[in-house]
Amino acid sequence: MIVGCGFGGLFTARALRNTPADVLVIDHNNYHLFQPLLYQVACAALAPADIAQPIRTILRHQKNARVMLAEVERVDLFGRCVEASDSRVPFDYLVLAPGAVDNYFGHEEWRSFAPGMKDIQEATLIRSRILRSFEAAEIEADEAERAAHLTFIIVGAGPTGVELSGSIKELAVDVIARDFRVADTRRARVMLIEAGARVLPALHSDSSARALAQLRTLGVEVRLGAPVTQVFADGVEVGGERLRSHNVIWTAGVRAAPLTASLGVPLGTGGRVCVAPDCSVPGHPQAFVIGDAAYLVDAASGQAVPGVSQGAMQMGRYAARLIDAELRGIPSERARGFHYRDKGSMATVGRSRAVVELGRLHFGGLLAWLAWMALHVTVLIGFRNRLAVLASWIYSYVFFRRGSRLITGLAPGRIHAPLAPANAAAHTPAAQMPVAQMPPPPEPRA
Amino acid sequence: MIVGCGFGGLFTARALRNTPADVLVIDHNNYHLFQPLLYQVACAALAPADIAQPIRTILRHQKNARVMLAEVERVDLFGRCVEASDSRVPFDYLVLAPGAVDNYFGHEEWRSFAPGMKDIQEATLIRSRILRSFEAAEIEADEAERAAHLTFIIVGAGPTGVELSGSIKELAVDVIARDFRVADTRRARVMLIEAGARVLPALHSDSSARALAQLRTLGVEVRLGAPVTQVFADGVEVGGERLRSHNVIWTAGVRAAPLTASLGVPLGTGGRVCVAPDCSVPGHPQAFVIGDAAYLVDAASGQAVPGVSQGAMQMGRYAARLIDAELRGIPSERARGFHYRDKGSMATVGRSRAVVELGRLHFGGLLAWLAWMALHVTVLIGFRNRLAVLASWIYSYVFFRRGSRLITGLAPGRIHAPLAPANAAAHTPAAQMPVAQMPPPPEPRA
Repeated sequence: MIVGCGFGGLFTARALRNTPADVLVIDHNNYHLFQPLLYQVACAALAPADIAQPIRTILRHQKNARVMLAEVERVDLFGRCVEASDSRVPFDYLVLAPGAVDNYFGHEEWRSFAPGMKDIQEATLIRSRILRSFEAAEIEADEAERAAHLTFIIVGAGPTGVELSGSIKELAVDVIARDFRVADTRRARVMLIEAGARVLPALHSDSSARALAQLRTLGVEVRLGAPVTQVFADGVEVGGERLRSHNVIWTAGVRAAPLTASLGVPLGTGGRVCVAPDCSVPGHPQAFVIGDAAYLVDAASGQAVPGVSQGAMQMGRYAARLIDAELRGIPSERARGFHYRDKGSMATVGRSRAVVELGRLHFGGLLAWLAWMALHVTVLIGFRNRLAVLASWIYSYVFFRRGSRLITGLAPGRIHAPLAPANAAAHTPAAQMPVAQMPPPPEPRA
Repeated sequence: MIVGCGFGGLFTARALRNTPADVLVIDHNNYHLFQPLLYQVACAALAPADIAQPIRTILRHQKNARVMLAEVERVDLFGRCVEASDSRVPFDYLVLAPGAVDNYFGHEEWRSFAPGMKDIQEATLIRSRILRSFEAAEIEADEAERAAHLTFIIVGAGPTGVELSGSIKELAVDVIARDFRVADTRRARVMLIEAGARVLPALHSDSSARALAQLRTLGVEVRLGAPVTQVFADGVEVGGERLRSHNVIWTAGVRAAPLTASLGVPLGTGGRVCVAPDCSVPGHPQAFVIGDAAYLVDAASGQAVPGVSQGAMQMGRYAARLIDAELRGIPSERARGFHYRDKGSMATVGRSRAVVELGRLHFGGLLAWLAWMALHVTVLIGFRNRLAVLASWIYSYVFFRRGSRLITGLAPGRIHAPLAPANAAAHTPAAQMPVAQMPPPPEPRA
């Protein structure tokens, strides 16, 4: 049984394709999501379907695999079964790959003001909020309030935060500026706030410096060493200073999916399961935890396996090899333990801007950007999705446009997202301003 | 001021591009939706963004046009203003084009069991419900219950009902059959229930007969002269017979958007405004109502202008010409009144199946299908959307696949849509069946 079909779960299932076993994949979504491109959904460049592929379709030809759409609520390690949608499903081997959720570090109340971006629902919500901010700015008569609508604050400068802030800036400057008559979206402020000393802390410091320079060239305001101490409906507090914004996005960190708590075993930082060197739950050699939900220090390098897709994929293939060997009764790699191979890292900042690390080779700029695109299109699951993403990127590159500028899922007629009912009185929403005061259209801009 | 940016509103705005006036377009969505292809979103063939284009982008180069995202709640004809999001916005001329909503003919309580399909939210909801039905069938142990999950009932055989039922049948038979191990989706029943004597009642009877034959070849069960007398959480009642289904879709008719009631003028059938021959509200020559919200008997033909995109577009252009002439102080066509020109009708039933009427020329089959596709791609707004739709159709045609098979927006872990809390106890949802009883995978099918 495989719970969760992200990179870890999917690669486990595929690696078991010739194993003499019934493989049951359970996920609460009917699709595998290519999370590295989720930020492009939030920025209206890609449609959700472009980066999602039905799990059934991926495993269509794998005859030993079955797929079940259900939410796993609890894992019973001793009873060897999981509880999913009020029923109990037994397993012989379990690979738990539930992934991660946003980590608000004890401030869950910030979630409603600063949504994170871990699934399609959240990404389309953020897309709607971003697009609505520009709409609100267009009809806002008050100058300060309009500025707050045109200020975007991204908390946390990991890859998602970096990519998102660059992409929002480009959206405002290159894509939509000519669509608005009153609001000058080219003057939109995008602020990337990071508690640590550099952006992309998981990469080497020269890549961080390179990405920082690229972000600043683009016009993103980066604040380093600036921990966010409070989040409000209309902004954040950073080092005693209050920054106003109606659009705060949380990319400051992740924690393991809450399902790990049901295991009844000790958890490490961020709710991760402290697994044995063979990725199994201590005392339960038939139950593996992989990917973002696992905490494992690689004995060879002395470093924790990072919470990236490569780590999840490698752990999944390792667990599959163990299971396959044991079911066939041949010697397995279990005693050797799992070892992570770092194949490199990359992040993109925007049009023709990216940083790449391949072993000791670190580079940025156009070449890095092309490498980033090539890798992401190649790794993306599904022929159609590859074509669609490639076509969308070419379209955006040539025409400076984005194909998925839809505001959906919010109450009709509300200009701003109804995320913060409690503090809504703290500011006057643009929607309640007399629109008759809407400023006249200025002279056409160049 | 133009309220609503469907076909009527958009064509009014465009026709006013050289008029010496400030054109303000108000819509509660930020996009113009190409409704004729909405059913393809519901059937997972197209992504929502493929058939929606931001209104701002469409009107980007029209310097006299401004766009406002807001919900118009009331029209004050005497005060010459509208109330939108708690503010009052004045107008000199008004073109009201709010479109239509589903008509449950006094049975609003049926809406929760049988959603309609008038906007993107509804279409993605129906998509999720359809896809979840197949998922529920896959893990359902009870034979009768599984059959109910694999039965799709479409109420109303207008163009949307015909297109939807054909497309669902093709989805079940051609697209997803090999993705499932237990449920034989090729045996899914699709029932099209129509109170009247024929399908596509707005077309000529030879086209109806042609479409009926095409539907039956495809395997859709069509029942004519069969009014639905009751809708339940798990089926419908037709002529005393109860048909079980967990997926009932309502395409039985439309009524004018509720905004028309705020005008304080007499309304015709379906809440439509009985407009003067020049499309204006009687007594208010500066206020026009066009499209699905207007009821107008064409003096020349003696027939009501049909609620189709052609009617809305022609009315919009007519109203724009009147306004333009009056603002310029030149003679207008007002006294002549509006006359509808029927440019033909078409509907598609499925792969290589369609019916077309062009004047006296009526034909069906492959040629009609190609004509249907060519027309829809051509009329679709936006270069990118045309390419995307065409590419999706070619992909579907060649590979028998569909690119947008996402279940979104429903509570995670719920197998079936939580539409009917009141009657939910009437049947046992599949999600609550012991999944351990899930039947074993059968031998691979050919």
